[in-house]
Amino acid sequence: MKLEPSKFYKAFAPRVTVLVTTIDVKGRVNAAPFSFAMPLSMNPPLVALGINYASNTLENISETREFVVNIPSNEIIDQVFKCSKTFPKGVSELEKTGLSKLKSSKVRPPRVAECVAWFECKLEWMHEAGDHMLVTGSVVEAEVKKELLKKNGNLDAEKARVLMHVGGNEFAVPFMI
Amino acid sequence: MKLEPSKFYKAFAPRVTVLVTTIDVKGRVNAAPFSFAMPLSMNPPLVALGINYASNTLENISETREFVVNIPSNEIIDQVFKCSKTFPKGVSELEKTGLSKLKSSKVRPPRVAECVAWFECKLEWMHEAGDHMLVTGSVVEAEVKKELLKKNGNLDAEKARVLMHVGGNEFAVPFMI
Repeated sequence: MKLEPSKFYKAFAPRVTVLVTTIDVKGRVNAAPFSFAMPLSMNPPLVALGINYASNTLENISETREFVVNIPSNEIIDQVFKCSKTFPKGVSELEKTGLSKLKSSKVRPPRVAECVAWFECKLEWMHEAGDHMLVTGSVVEAEVKKELLKKNGNLDAEKARVLMHVGGNEFAVPFMI
Repeated sequence: MKLEPSKFYKAFAPRVTVLVTTIDVKGRVNAAPFSFAMPLSMNPPLVALGINYASNTLENISETREFVVNIPSNEIIDQVFKCSKTFPKGVSELEKTGLSKLKSSKVRPPRVAECVAWFECKLEWMHEAGDHMLVTGSVVEAEVKKELLKKNGNLDAEKARVLMHVGGNEFAVPFMI
């Protein structure tokens, strides 16, 4: 059946949900989930995010030019979902949801301790793209929980229980085939 | 454990694998799988792909400015994997793998009949991004198999058995939580 073109993303699912941490010019931490997100280049390592214009995340990245892409598992689905709510600017979603900050190695925004992988990024370039801003970041440090990386170098996606957004409040986890 | 930054994408998984169909200036059909792919904007509807420079897909999109993003299920995993191999330019991966063409509504490249959703796209803009080209397309027609869209408007991702790439020849399907 035909979909309104503006609803095409409903059939482009599920999508890995990332939790993006940023800081504002005063150093206050923000965390927000996004599912318009993908790797873009391996060498140099680049990540791409589609971010809505009204978000504090976009304002923070524009001002401080750094962010961390945190990969959550379904263990923190409730906290991730809560982070999608609008809190006043300067209020830390991490504190409000009980998630813990972990110091990053090469950027100022913290990692989220309860996640399973972390990509520390510096803003590369942005490009307007309809109702979202395309934000690309250079990955300056990448880390994954040791027990989730298999000997062949692939993620143990099933063990990681990577949280993937289907739509609304519906999520999925991967099942290996 | 730390990852080489160039390997960060290994921990950014699994990713929906799309089969992109294009035509060259002579009208010959090409099909190739990509997993650096995401929705980018809803209104206007835009899709983003990270495409390696050497691919016929990028050459075709540059020349004919149209493409179809086809969403495969795991039922055609072998055919999708075969499409990732390099065939000489002008050789149709669809014919080589036994997949069927379905006429598109608004663009010249065909859809792949065996897929579960289809987004017909016109090239919007491209931007160099490391070892990949960031290609964005305007979605001019979107369709999904009727039995896979739930009444709430979300994809029945588990029934669709959307094919997601983990790494190498490892794939996953979604399991609702």
